[in-house]
Amino acid sequence: MHPFELTLAEAADAMAKGELSPVELTGSVLERIDAVEGRLGAYVAVASDAARTSAVSAEREIAAGRYRGPLHGIPFGLKDLIDVAGLPTTASSRVRAGHIAQVDSAVTTLLSDAGAVLLGKTHTHEFAFGLTTPQTRNAWDQGRVAGGSSGGSAVAVAAGAATFALGTDTGGSIRVPAALNGVVGLKPTYDLISRRGVTSLSWSLDHVGPLTRTVRDAALVLSALVGPDSREAAGLDVAQPGSPLPGEGDLTGLRIGVPANYYFDRVSPAVEAAVRRAIAQMSDLGAELVKVEIPMARYIQAIQWGLMVPEATAYHERTLRSVPELYAPDVRVLLEAGELMSAGDYLRAQRARTLLREAWGRLFGTVDVIAAPSVPMTAVETGQDTVAWPDGTTESVSDAYVRLSAPANIAGIPALSLPVGCDHAGLPIGMQLMGPPMGEALVLRAGDAYEGAQGRRGELAPVPA
Amino acid sequence: MHPFELTLAEAADAMAKGELSPVELTGSVLERIDAVEGRLGAYVAVASDAARTSAVSAEREIAAGRYRGPLHGIPFGLKDLIDVAGLPTTASSRVRAGHIAQVDSAVTTLLSDAGAVLLGKTHTHEFAFGLTTPQTRNAWDQGRVAGGSSGGSAVAVAAGAATFALGTDTGGSIRVPAALNGVVGLKPTYDLISRRGVTSLSWSLDHVGPLTRTVRDAALVLSALVGPDSREAAGLDVAQPGSPLPGEGDLTGLRIGVPANYYFDRVSPAVEAAVRRAIAQMSDLGAELVKVEIPMARYIQAIQWGLMVPEATAYHERTLRSVPELYAPDVRVLLEAGELMSAGDYLRAQRARTLLREAWGRLFGTVDVIAAPSVPMTAVETGQDTVAWPDGTTESVSDAYVRLSAPANIAGIPALSLPVGCDHAGLPIGMQLMGPPMGEALVLRAGDAYEGAQGRRGELAPVPA
Repeated sequence: MHPFELTLAEAADAMAKGELSPVELTGSVLERIDAVEGRLGAYVAVASDAARTSAVSAEREIAAGRYRGPLHGIPFGLKDLIDVAGLPTTASSRVRAGHIAQVDSAVTTLLSDAGAVLLGKTHTHEFAFGLTTPQTRNAWDQGRVAGGSSGGSAVAVAAGAATFALGTDTGGSIRVPAALNGVVGLKPTYDLISRRGVTSLSWSLDHVGPLTRTVRDAALVLSALVGPDSREAAGLDVAQPGSPLPGEGDLTGLRIGVPANYYFDRVSPAVEAAVRRAIAQMSDLGAELVKVEIPMARYIQAIQWGLMVPEATAYHERTLRSVPELYAPDVRVLLEAGELMSAGDYLRAQRARTLLREAWGRLFGTVDVIAAPSVPMTAVETGQDTVAWPDGTTESVSDAYVRLSAPANIAGIPALSLPVGCDHAGLPIGMQLMGPPMGEALVLRAGDAYEGAQGRRGELAPVPA
Repeated sequence: MHPFELTLAEAADAMAKGELSPVELTGSVLERIDAVEGRLGAYVAVASDAARTSAVSAEREIAAGRYRGPLHGIPFGLKDLIDVAGLPTTASSRVRAGHIAQVDSAVTTLLSDAGAVLLGKTHTHEFAFGLTTPQTRNAWDQGRVAGGSSGGSAVAVAAGAATFALGTDTGGSIRVPAALNGVVGLKPTYDLISRRGVTSLSWSLDHVGPLTRTVRDAALVLSALVGPDSREAAGLDVAQPGSPLPGEGDLTGLRIGVPANYYFDRVSPAVEAAVRRAIAQMSDLGAELVKVEIPMARYIQAIQWGLMVPEATAYHERTLRSVPELYAPDVRVLLEAGELMSAGDYLRAQRARTLLREAWGRLFGTVDVIAAPSVPMTAVETGQDTVAWPDGTTESVSDAYVRLSAPANIAGIPALSLPVGCDHAGLPIGMQLMGPPMGEALVLRAGDAYEGAQGRRGELAPVPA
């Protein structure tokens, strides 16, 4: 087994025992990048020399007995919306040509303090405003989309080209590519993780979070990204590589809401079957299944777009006027649409969000977590723009991919996507576990129990080297 | 001395000692209302019978040894934007004809729990969207405006027609009429007092707060309006009628910021002189005066209107379409203007507010409170629409009245207006003391010390009966 094949928890465990060195792991992951990056296009830029230097520092510190914790010496990729002082933050856009970040983002500082080793910056759909990440190819089938907008991060983790990565999620941008590439993605509670130094798409919906191979790995990264106070409040202090998540393997007493509407509408049969099978397995682990009605379902898309488009337009106001031709056409049209929206439209979306949040709050009075598909279908072929459903409706691929993930952004609640098998073409399927605000520990516990019951965790995509 | 002439603290003190009964006080205030209401027009409706019944209950409770605290048995007026179950909330508007509130507002419940006696509902500028309250006349000169939008509450308190009252303040609507009628008005920290059951003008700028005869009275009412947790956090537990506010009379160590720009620009000489004299007196009491620069001054008006107009329009969306003719023309034009604003305009105002809040936060790193005029001039004559300044500019009366109070709404900080003398025509002048968020105890302490040094507190307007 090559070190790049290790999950974060496995690598941290080996590192803490002195059986693996940061230099060895980083070297192995950099070799993996060399081998697969030509096929995948996950990275905007790889900082090999800087990564090796960090790995040497980590190795010396650990050898000197100054082990910082589970992220020490672990190589990671950073979505290229997240500032690292001295490096460009390209946002995968020509608009950012010549840009260099002056200051580390808050999460960069936290990961650096935790001793993690930055490998490079990963591709995003331009300015995070899209669900495909066209520069990057799916880790399981390079003729298919990576998903987005954190496509580069998901693909790098799925291929062993990063032991973990960070992404951002405004309408599903962590969970969609996580689902399509068979990795774990966590969108935490709104405001739990700082957005300082992270390029904004829509500030009232933006979230930073981890993409990892396993649920346990996601808990480890999350733990490093939240301050000690929030960590305690969110019950995350338990997430150490050697110690079990609370109640591991046993879900007795956990009430899992299974949506009677919305989340299983216009979903491919393979996705529905895999998610329902996973839910049944959680029931076998002791969870109680409770049918729930998703509130205000017909307003979700209007709220999501009503908030996102004008906020994105406000952020891009100046460059949209000075250099509109530098935006990709799909992004530019959305930003220009935002200029036509009225304050009343935006305020209606804000007010509806308030009502939706309250309604979801009541929902979590009756269940602990809600289980649902992350996305309605697996990765489509590159260039496919629409999807036709058996009910006769046709939907844009982007609308379909965002449809089931957006509610958690609007409600600001934690949502975890984890792999629950593959379709007939061998493409990964993702299940989403959502919890109440600050309910990260709950969804991680549920996901970890499911994952543990599968017998294997954190499978890598079989990318030919 | 008639009971209606007592301040809240004096009445509460007498009541606790058994020297005054709720029935006596309420009867005296109701008589005063009968005597002056014809001249003043402070009330939309007086609920004499209900008030007498409440007073009898309070009297029995107190006699039975169940004294609830300083508001027990004290008669008050409620701005007619604030719901009382079973009564209309007219918002002083024809649009609300036939309306009956079903549920008490949060503050109504709190005052009722404190044992206070509701006298009736006081006039507001229609839906709080104006600075004059045309139905009501100034307590000191009935040919002049009451100020607004909480004009009825301020005039009632100034005339002894309520021992205290509640108002709401979105751009100055508590402080402006307080200043123009020689009473104390407090706009607390944003969100410190619940807005549940209070008709909204602009939800991100709206605040509920007390209008009283003295600073100490304002502290007593505030104490009843905040929950126990917030009360402690805001240092308000000390505000009992018999006990001094902390450091009473001595301001040693208090750093008072005196604005070098904005707050003394385009201010009448009488107002400037009175406020500067009051500041000098606070310096004599031990305070250190520090010159401060008001940040982002030229954006204040744009932010205030950029937030307020679209939020107000959103609130009135349905009735503005169904019954536009029922709004007064001045209010209708503002609401219709809101329909023309873009989401970008509103978001620019929101983002500028964030920057302004941060800048004011830094300001309160260097001073404890900021002292300034509440309004740039005393009460204008009814019908006067504009004011001409010596620098050659002309300003609408509304713009002038809102100009110095709006910053505290945008910044969400506590702002206390208290009387600091009169102009040559005998019209009251108000000084504003602003503090950092949750700094209520600081501004109340400073105001109380100033007031104490004057030798007399809580002078009533000499309304001919």
